[in-house]
Amino acid sequence: MADLSKHILLMDGPDNKGLIYHVTGVLFRHDLNIIHNDEYVSPSGRFFMRTEFEGTYDNEALLKELYMTLPTGISLRLNPKRKKNIVVFVTKEHHCLAELLIRYAFDELDADILAVVSNYNTLQPLVSKFGIPFHYVSHEGKTREEQEEVILKTLAIYEPEYLVLAKYMRVLTPSFVDHFPNRIINIHHSFLPAFIGANPYRQAYDRGVKIIGATAHFVNNDLDEGPIIAQNVKEVDHRHSAADMATEGKDVEKIVLSQALKLVFNDRVFISGNRAIVL
Amino acid sequence: MADLSKHILLMDGPDNKGLIYHVTGVLFRHDLNIIHNDEYVSPSGRFFMRTEFEGTYDNEALLKELYMTLPTGISLRLNPKRKKNIVVFVTKEHHCLAELLIRYAFDELDADILAVVSNYNTLQPLVSKFGIPFHYVSHEGKTREEQEEVILKTLAIYEPEYLVLAKYMRVLTPSFVDHFPNRIINIHHSFLPAFIGANPYRQAYDRGVKIIGATAHFVNNDLDEGPIIAQNVKEVDHRHSAADMATEGKDVEKIVLSQALKLVFNDRVFISGNRAIVL
Amino acid sequence: MADLSKHILLMDGPDNKGLIYHVTGVLFRHDLNIIHNDEYVSPSGRFFMRTEFEGTYDNEALLKELYMTLPTGISLRLNPKRKKNIVVFVTKEHHCLAELLIRYAFDELDADILAVVSNYNTLQPLVSKFGIPFHYVSHEGKTREEQEEVILKTLAIYEPEYLVLAKYMRVLTPSFVDHFPNRIINIHHSFLPAFIGANPYRQAYDRGVKIIGATAHFVNNDLDEGPIIAQNVKEVDHRHSAADMATEGKDVEKIVLSQALKLVFNDRVFISGNRAIVL
Amino acid sequence: MADLSKHILLMDGPDNKGLIYHVTGVLFRHDLNIIHNDEYVSPSGRFFMRTEFEGTYDNEALLKELYMTLPTGISLRLNPKRKKNIVVFVTKEHHCLAELLIRYAFDELDADILAVVSNYNTLQPLVSKFGIPFHYVSHEGKTREEQEEVILKTLAIYEPEYLVLAKYMRVLTPSFVDHFPNRIINIHHSFLPAFIGANPYRQAYDRGVKIIGATAHFVNNDLDEGPIIAQNVKEVDHRHSAADMATEGKDVEKIVLSQALKLVFNDRVFISGNRAIVL
Repeated sequence: MADLSKHILLMDGPDNKGLIYHVTGVLFRHDLNIIHNDEYVSPSGRFFMRTEFEGTYDNEALLKELYMTLPTGISLRLNPKRKKNIVVFVTKEHHCLAELLIRYAFDELDADILAVVSNYNTLQPLVSKFGIPFHYVSHEGKTREEQEEVILKTLAIYEPEYLVLAKYMRVLTPSFVDHFPNRIINIHHSFLPAFIGANPYRQAYDRGVKIIGATAHFVNNDLDEGPIIAQNVKEVDHRHSAADMATEGKDVEKIVLSQALKLVFNDRVFISGNRAIVL
Repeated sequence: MADLSKHILLMDGPDNKGLIYHVTGVLFRHDLNIIHNDEYVSPSGRFFMRTEFEGTYDNEALLKELYMTLPTGISLRLNPKRKKNIVVFVTKEHHCLAELLIRYAFDELDADILAVVSNYNTLQPLVSKFGIPFHYVSHEGKTREEQEEVILKTLAIYEPEYLVLAKYMRVLTPSFVDHFPNRIINIHHSFLPAFIGANPYRQAYDRGVKIIGATAHFVNNDLDEGPIIAQNVKEVDHRHSAADMATEGKDVEKIVLSQALKLVFNDRVFISGNRAIVL
Repeated sequence: MADLSKHILLMDGPDNKGLIYHVTGVLFRHDLNIIHNDEYVSPSGRFFMRTEFEGTYDNEALLKELYMTLPTGISLRLNPKRKKNIVVFVTKEHHCLAELLIRYAFDELDADILAVVSNYNTLQPLVSKFGIPFHYVSHEGKTREEQEEVILKTLAIYEPEYLVLAKYMRVLTPSFVDHFPNRIINIHHSFLPAFIGANPYRQAYDRGVKIIGATAHFVNNDLDEGPIIAQNVKEVDHRHSAADMATEGKDVEKIVLSQALKLVFNDRVFISGNRAIVL
Repeated sequence: MADLSKHILLMDGPDNKGLIYHVTGVLFRHDLNIIHNDEYVSPSGRFFMRTEFEGTYDNEALLKELYMTLPTGISLRLNPKRKKNIVVFVTKEHHCLAELLIRYAFDELDADILAVVSNYNTLQPLVSKFGIPFHYVSHEGKTREEQEEVILKTLAIYEPEYLVLAKYMRVLTPSFVDHFPNRIINIHHSFLPAFIGANPYRQAYDRGVKIIGATAHFVNNDLDEGPIIAQNVKEVDHRHSAADMATEGKDVEKIVLSQALKLVFNDRVFISGNRAIVL
């Protein structure tokens, strides 16, 4: 008998008349009280719903009744809300990693950091302060596939639900990405889709922009092209060099990444084509 | 037979188990399809819901069935969505009024401006360009009550649903406000509750703030204290004089007022105590 | 004898030791008081300075002494501050044009709108309310060059200092742009360099962005590539359709364009390569 | 012989004709090249200037010549730019402290954290990770003056230039504040001057605001009233409880505090009455 005070039900499937009615009917008959309900129907006719409710219930019985009541093709997740297990990938920059470590240390991340993977050992001293395993997997003298092979073996130990690229400056192969569909989250240091690819702050400086930004997104196999979860921006002016923009940008990057992770880890993000739906 | 493509149902009352279920059941039995549904339960246990749905139905029959299905104490509004009738109040500043006139002229206001009332005749030439009646009701040589008496008689001609104070620089009497409960919307030229009262930009300058703002709110009988509908801000620095801040602030004021009116006129705003709920 | 209370001196040229010293020395010997002085040296070694000062002086004598004191290659503009003459270009959308007309009508634009040019007659009624000439130059049945020829003849009457493209949806030919170097200002309905070209809100929707923006920039002969003067942004979410984003974006566009024009018309913008320096 | 590549000269005093000319003349005669010069004259006639320049010079000779050339009453600081020494004060919340510790650990703070002082021992484990002395000075069973007496003795060991109140939830006595004029910086968890005093997020929730903020300011002897250095804000809505607002607000607080400290530690902040001038 699940007995926590707050439960979450997630639904995803083709739109149909009566979906909200059918689901809320099952909950009502189980004497469960809805605290918050949010739904979205995409232009292509896909239905997404996230329901928070209170009460005591039998997990299996509730799911069974829901599936019987709903049309086929609807996917349900009951009560996924708990801490996610993640592995964080970094290269040399510390700001996003440090932000995650501090939040983790004070139980504010909604996730457990199982390990940190890096192609440099630069950040090992920082990670060790927090008692988390650090795996240094250099890319030097290895093909991309060879390095990823080592990483995959490491990940096999931890079985993380999500990989968080917290300024990991290597492009992942399609094969690697395919292992983790919609489970890799990246922070890109620009306001996508502006300045795709390398050196975005250099590009931003050369273009003379007056605002810089950062974008947290799921990784798919088109470079910097997966569904965007969160973005934020900051004003700059002509006195900012490319290096100044990079410095200012770090504050935006780490906060945007944290906000995106909070949404994902609280099961508030659905994926609809190349768009992220935040309920 | 109502036959528009999109309908709105608004609910407001004490929270109870099954409210969403009961309402969506009635809609389902009438073969109506919910496009968007948003609800909120306040900490004090009040339930608010806004439902957009599609289909053809008999207005009276639907409302009757809803009232029979729901517990007593729930207030319903079916399909209030249409243009609101408003009267705009101004003093001498044109920026908010001009914004509303332009939007009205191009059918972007979701309201009809029936008339403009002012305690000065400064803006009469602007209003006349748009073919709208302008009522100059000077406050000179009159008590507050006497001036408001004239205004009330003018309003009686138009029977507006909302009064919009678009930089009307007179404080209304409690008696006047009581005629229009939750139907008067004001734009205050500060980020409330900072700088309540007169000369907020002067106050902001003296305090050396780095950000200024504007607040659109319902008017009740505590000065600058009604439910806040929308707010926005803008960065300033030490080079901005109080006059510069006022100039910069105008751009914020007119946009915030327009955004707040859009929410109200689209029936997306509920009032819960001194807080505005935007669904 | 110029005798206004506040004067402006603009300098632009190769950097050299002592430039500020030499200029301020000339002003000091003429008993003039500097109120505000701002300068910038670009990474490529170009010096830009904008000086506001008070006092009475002989224009010719002051300029002569400045040129004698400064190294060759420095360009000076003394006291350009006054209203600029502009012609506004539009197509069918009214929001930016209306913003400029209202500001002009209330003497807040720092410019005189001499005329409005459009490839449609849609906005003629709006323009006529403000007593400004409207030139309808259709592009139908004409080559781009033929249409521009007609426009150039119209502009020859007015001799405007700046052309403002307030949602003019035609790409100008290089030959036309060459007539007005750094004198054409455009508002682009996206956060450049994201979504260059047509239908940026459609592109933004398809990409699932969480923030939209607008960019005011000088026009050169690379599409959407001239120096950026001002940018601003607004949050959106998955519920915004492409049309909703366009509606929300209009508020950003008109304010950004107005802010950029204010900077340009107050002689606060210098051009350094493809970057705009705002002093 | 000072020989660093970039030097800073700060000036502060009554405005006078020729001040910029006189200073830049001295620099020119010493063959020094100004990279950036920014000045401000307050409405009350006070002159502030910050000059960055390059070159080699004799410190004493330069200062002497500057003082001889300038009118009396001008205060000069030559080349203060170096790391500041600071002591950080905290209570139980970690987010601002952690932000400073991480920046310090990666040499991004422009300051050395000599010690952390707290009225609780909650954050000792965090501080110890970074090898910084932690002084637990409980207020229990002590008068305010007694507790501050202990703190003052501790500070006497370190002789810090600045005290940073990184969520220190005790009001300091006027006597304590007088020991550190314009040298105590506080982060206040609201958009001052809204919600002065305790529980600002509770106040913000009750008032139903749509934007929350944070303010970094110098501490003087009027509660929450010293010169404001930096402010920032974040949108909230009716779904945010007071606790949610507090959580969201933490991200704003720590970034605003860091930005304010960067300005102060880089000698870019002057104080003019109750206003902070950022050059």
